[in-house]
Amino acid sequence: MSRFWSSSLQQLAPYVPGEQPKDNRYIKLNTNENPYPPSPSVIAAIKAATNETLRLYPDPNCDDLRAAVAEYYQTEKANIFVGNGSDEILALAFLAFFQQPHPILFPDITYSFYEVYCNLFRIESSQMPVSADFQIQLADYHRPNGGIIFANPNALTGRTLPIETIEQLLKNNKDSVVVIDEAYIDFGGESAIGLVGQFANLLVVQTFSKSRSLAGLRVGFALGAEELITGLRRVKNSFNSYTLDRLALVGAVAAIKDELYFQQLCRKVVETRDWTVHELLSLGFAIVPSNANFIFMQHKDVQAKTLYEMLKERGILVRYFDRAKVNNHLRVTIGTREEMAEFLETTTSIIQEYRR
Amino acid sequence: MSRFWSSSLQQLAPYVPGEQPKDNRYIKLNTNENPYPPSPSVIAAIKAATNETLRLYPDPNCDDLRAAVAEYYQTEKANIFVGNGSDEILALAFLAFFQQPHPILFPDITYSFYEVYCNLFRIESSQMPVSADFQIQLADYHRPNGGIIFANPNALTGRTLPIETIEQLLKNNKDSVVVIDEAYIDFGGESAIGLVGQFANLLVVQTFSKSRSLAGLRVGFALGAEELITGLRRVKNSFNSYTLDRLALVGAVAAIKDELYFQQLCRKVVETRDWTVHELLSLGFAIVPSNANFIFMQHKDVQAKTLYEMLKERGILVRYFDRAKVNNHLRVTIGTREEMAEFLETTTSIIQEYRR
Repeated sequence: MSRFWSSSLQQLAPYVPGEQPKDNRYIKLNTNENPYPPSPSVIAAIKAATNETLRLYPDPNCDDLRAAVAEYYQTEKANIFVGNGSDEILALAFLAFFQQPHPILFPDITYSFYEVYCNLFRIESSQMPVSADFQIQLADYHRPNGGIIFANPNALTGRTLPIETIEQLLKNNKDSVVVIDEAYIDFGGESAIGLVGQFANLLVVQTFSKSRSLAGLRVGFALGAEELITGLRRVKNSFNSYTLDRLALVGAVAAIKDELYFQQLCRKVVETRDWTVHELLSLGFAIVPSNANFIFMQHKDVQAKTLYEMLKERGILVRYFDRAKVNNHLRVTIGTREEMAEFLETTTSIIQEYRR
Repeated sequence: MSRFWSSSLQQLAPYVPGEQPKDNRYIKLNTNENPYPPSPSVIAAIKAATNETLRLYPDPNCDDLRAAVAEYYQTEKANIFVGNGSDEILALAFLAFFQQPHPILFPDITYSFYEVYCNLFRIESSQMPVSADFQIQLADYHRPNGGIIFANPNALTGRTLPIETIEQLLKNNKDSVVVIDEAYIDFGGESAIGLVGQFANLLVVQTFSKSRSLAGLRVGFALGAEELITGLRRVKNSFNSYTLDRLALVGAVAAIKDELYFQQLCRKVVETRDWTVHELLSLGFAIVPSNANFIFMQHKDVQAKTLYEMLKERGILVRYFDRAKVNNHLRVTIGTREEMAEFLETTTSIIQEYRR
């Protein structure tokens, strides 16, 4: 603490990202990165743009990237916003839409950054309890509110809301902005992007970090009605004119244009996920149905925290959340087939030790 | 306007950056970019890092870059913050330090983003008038305040406060944070970085955009007492865990290590500036003394707006600000010697037309 800190800073509890170890000691299954490299066309595009033009500011409107995303989703550039990762877009959306007379609503088990944004921007919120099996209860969101946000698939559990439920939720809340954080949607869920044309209050946020293997480049995008996108752009232009550097802009354009590579990547991750789940079930794990590039699991005999620590000792890093309702679960990112084989082998030996 | 916008968004007047034309029609002297390419070692470092590791998140703590900046300024990593351009750092500093019971103070003629941040974060401010020749009046800042911010050299005029005046201002304001925005300091002013050890309330913000020719890479840094840096890091980690991508991080490290190239660049810009000023004086321009990579000038016969338009017609883009007190001045970025020769030739012919 410092006497120079603003009162809001005094009360902040910042988001804590997963560990990013600097050596390569671990099989890293803790921050939902894609195990495969980005498209070769991304690498080529960035290298080609690494030249003397770096002396010039990037395009503050990010027109080329917005046009590429618009083309991919067969919509207009006016419906696309891009930002420095989906986190930045979410933060700007909280500023743009969620400072309202009523509290905003989100599930109690979700991406923990939502609560952090509320603290940062002094926004009131009500957290709606998910069921014992981590289902969002639609009826909870049918009440006066200053906005709604949730991750679909859920960022912690992988559980996914069907599009019909989302449509109902949008119909019930036409007077407030509903933000759907689809960071993991490309691994099996159905995107709400198809609903953007019907609901002026819907903002769908996605990222290049997961399904396009570009966590290191920091690019996210959002789709919504033009009035929402204009609002986001106004807030962005009141915060930082240029949040995407020249290299991120060209890399992201190349990524979205390489549809074939993207589809291959997603398919490989999904196949490995389904195989991993199958193997874990036979080891006595209970696993939340996942449409993401991770699984959320608990074991009937071994405490999650113990398993986390034993895996780490043996060179495998997964994510343990010391929070009510989920502190006996582990979140495990889907790596390559080889990495998951090693994860399964190590996990099997730990479980066997317990059974003896 | 949209009914979905927050009340603060409804009232925002976003910052408007200088034009970034997409073709190369213009000699671009409007956004204070460096006319020379970044160091070859920056290009090499970025190309080397453009590989499959882009699939992984960057280091959220930016340790390597903070260590490199600390080494350059012979201080500790704990005294260094880095961000997505100095604009992002300034925005985070407003959130971290300036939400206070008293209004913050800044000059009425300065970087116009300060006022935008106040609107965005609902921070009260009092703008202190500069003198007719754009001097900051030290006595104005000796009153209860929630913080002080100014650009040195002044972002609009190039005028620079001597370090003794800054020291006096810091002594007069030991209870509030003083942010000095030194985006242009490397072109001739004396940095306040030497005072960081003496004043716990001093934050100095700099950028790689100007003197290190990396506007397109989006990297800035700040030096201050550890408690201020910790505050900035807490706010950053409540906003976006990773604001610098992997390529920006390695590029900036390479830039700060190439001291010789940096010195050469600054010297060339300063030489061209001094020559340009000399030539303009003989054309009847009045020029504010500049320690920046731009000059702020007015002509006794030709209105600034007219000159701006005539230069643009002839392929030269400079910056005109339609604001009280400065709307008969133009801000002209220092380009290469060849660009400035063309600027001078075109300006001479415009002036001669007026004299006829």
